[in-house]
Amino acid sequence: MSTPHQSIDQQIAEIGKKARVASREMAKAGTRQKNGALTRLAELIQAHRAQLKSANQTDLDRARAAGNDAAFIDRLTLSDKAIDAMVEGVAQVAKLSDPIGEIDGMRTQPSGISVGKMRVPLGVIGIIYESRPNVTVDAAALCIKAGNATVLRGGSEAIESNRVLAHLIQEALKAANLPAESVQLIPTTDRQAVSAMITMPQYIDVIVPRGGKSLIERIAKESRVPVIKHLDGICHVYIDDDADIEKAVRIADNAKTQRYGTCNTMETLLIARAVANQVLAPLVRIYLDKGVELRVCDKTRKALSALGLTSNLIKDATAADWDTEYLAPILAVKLVAGIEEAMAHIDQHGSRHTDAIVTENHSKAMRFLREVDSASVIVNASTRFADGFEFGLGAEIGISNDKIHARGPVGLEGLTTYKWVVLGSGQIRN
Amino acid sequence: MSTPHQSIDQQIAEIGKKARVASREMAKAGTRQKNGALTRLAELIQAHRAQLKSANQTDLDRARAAGNDAAFIDRLTLSDKAIDAMVEGVAQVAKLSDPIGEIDGMRTQPSGISVGKMRVPLGVIGIIYESRPNVTVDAAALCIKAGNATVLRGGSEAIESNRVLAHLIQEALKAANLPAESVQLIPTTDRQAVSAMITMPQYIDVIVPRGGKSLIERIAKESRVPVIKHLDGICHVYIDDDADIEKAVRIADNAKTQRYGTCNTMETLLIARAVANQVLAPLVRIYLDKGVELRVCDKTRKALSALGLTSNLIKDATAADWDTEYLAPILAVKLVAGIEEAMAHIDQHGSRHTDAIVTENHSKAMRFLREVDSASVIVNASTRFADGFEFGLGAEIGISNDKIHARGPVGLEGLTTYKWVVLGSGQIRN
Repeated sequence: MSTPHQSIDQQIAEIGKKARVASREMAKAGTRQKNGALTRLAELIQAHRAQLKSANQTDLDRARAAGNDAAFIDRLTLSDKAIDAMVEGVAQVAKLSDPIGEIDGMRTQPSGISVGKMRVPLGVIGIIYESRPNVTVDAAALCIKAGNATVLRGGSEAIESNRVLAHLIQEALKAANLPAESVQLIPTTDRQAVSAMITMPQYIDVIVPRGGKSLIERIAKESRVPVIKHLDGICHVYIDDDADIEKAVRIADNAKTQRYGTCNTMETLLIARAVANQVLAPLVRIYLDKGVELRVCDKTRKALSALGLTSNLIKDATAADWDTEYLAPILAVKLVAGIEEAMAHIDQHGSRHTDAIVTENHSKAMRFLREVDSASVIVNASTRFADGFEFGLGAEIGISNDKIHARGPVGLEGLTTYKWVVLGSGQIRN
Repeated sequence: MSTPHQSIDQQIAEIGKKARVASREMAKAGTRQKNGALTRLAELIQAHRAQLKSANQTDLDRARAAGNDAAFIDRLTLSDKAIDAMVEGVAQVAKLSDPIGEIDGMRTQPSGISVGKMRVPLGVIGIIYESRPNVTVDAAALCIKAGNATVLRGGSEAIESNRVLAHLIQEALKAANLPAESVQLIPTTDRQAVSAMITMPQYIDVIVPRGGKSLIERIAKESRVPVIKHLDGICHVYIDDDADIEKAVRIADNAKTQRYGTCNTMETLLIARAVANQVLAPLVRIYLDKGVELRVCDKTRKALSALGLTSNLIKDATAADWDTEYLAPILAVKLVAGIEEAMAHIDQHGSRHTDAIVTENHSKAMRFLREVDSASVIVNASTRFADGFEFGLGAEIGISNDKIHARGPVGLEGLTTYKWVVLGSGQIRN
């Protein structure tokens, strides 16, 4: 007897099989061919702007009727500006240099064979994401450039927008003589489709989930396919007793207030006691002017009182504050004895995403880089730099909290693997 | 109510917690300190040879009484030669250059920050292996050198040998002022210990299973910790119509007969029809002289008859032969039209381990390298070279069939990851 789940599973398996076949063609595709598909895609999105906005309007009407909040609607909306950004993004990816086929570290071994590593596509990438239709195009473009096939599962509220975009992507692929099945959108909004995707390692090589923490945790727990995942960013700035105070204030201001809702925003500020007064006097005024609520430890509270700094925005921190990703104009502040206590705090409460030290002391800078176990460790710059574009990757499919395969900002290279290539002239093993 | 499983799970969790703490110290350890531990370990194994052999004798007596076969007993035995090899292996690992702390690709970005990648330990490695006590020392040595903590779960039949070895490893660590908990042996032979290890991602960063295919498949299926796994090696040599016949015969002989039981041994030989007679005439005589049974396709059978080559060792291949890893003096032989059919056969029947082409044609060599989706692809050399030592890695923890993180022979680098390091001088993001 067939159940609804079985039929969804079969449908997803069919998509997976086609993706696997298409991935073989994609792996062989030349740079010019892949760039041709991307350039064509940018043109097609421009040419079908009206159709795209109309499909998006259907999604928006439904989402509003379902009572989704303003932030949700904002992410779902394909405004002209959002469409321009998608087009620009695709054009940028076309300009990136193609990593596929590069051979690295070719060396002759004592036996006479030459051995190196060739960069090759991963194969089939599954992307599971929320109702942000721009991800459909951004993710597909990166996967095409890296020579992969892609199975896309977007949020159900964006299904009409995604259908139009997926159609344009397939048209662009066909125009470049690449298989349309290289990018497939899961056509059903049934949640069982996600369960099917994450349990077919024979068809999908890697899952990239993008979305809320609970969705990602569930996928990581249940997936039999390797997952490149981003969980949370509880990022720290530690202002050392050897910090340049002017730099420290500038960095701590920027790391918190340049954008509040991003994963590389500072959530906890650690300050060495010896420089607390020098730092707090200018910095707290900046935060209060910008409306940032401060959750402070006892020692910070005393220092602020002594400095005559009072405000309704200054509150006592509770234990939970050290483990919270606010994504909001709220900052936890703690005074520490020095680098040891700062690193111990980061080890205990951080999320291994991005942490920074401000110091002029070389040895302490090097210790922090070496010993803090985070994807990005920074000396004398804002945590906000932890980003694929700022790191020079040219683009970003996400930021990984994992240690395996890809860590921190993931660009094209994270969507590739390598094979060993051996060139001989008749060698045999003794 | 506590069950036996709960108490094993707690015991393994305690070991995991200690490993996690020890891994922080190991990550900070300098090269001299890690090499000191390895050198001391080599000395301690030498000094405790008698004790080791006595413990091993206990294991051997039990294993023989339990009716294990000769191959099993051979792998379990710590002969003087096996002990010498362990000592030599540890000394070799001490001589390898230390990958930890290397910073690669440091580049200044438009914002003025410099960004590079620092090589760092993975953290805690879990090794699950069969009753081969030499793996205890080989694996521990590599993990120590790469700055990791290790949890070892060896086969229950080797428990007495492993206990002595683990004790010596911990003594060596202490002598070098490194935490003894950096290498811990699971003291129980209860199988629940494996289930516990593979479901605690909070304490173990990667699992390396070594052993039979069914064990590894079970671990891969149930593990919530990433797995670097080796499944099977169905390796091919394709002799192209543009092959140098002398090289082809030499390579096809070596790839099959140099050792029968290794994963990089050729299991299927594909020959372009145009050169079949030239190749088969000398090669089949070699195989028959060495007692290699041939499972041949119809066309090969006809070619052999025409050449007057007959033997009881020549049998008709069945469909199953193309998918079998013999690990024995048996070889499947198939004639193909050319490189297209050869690559299609490898894609359908191979295990993505190691495949070789013999050809003098540059374009076909490059196509094979680029298009065959295997961990190691070889031109004009024996498949037997697919090995960490032959590839210049200096040592090998295993060979990976996976595409994620580490592929093919896995040396020290596969036991490491990277972090992004950012050096600024006060930069903030605009």
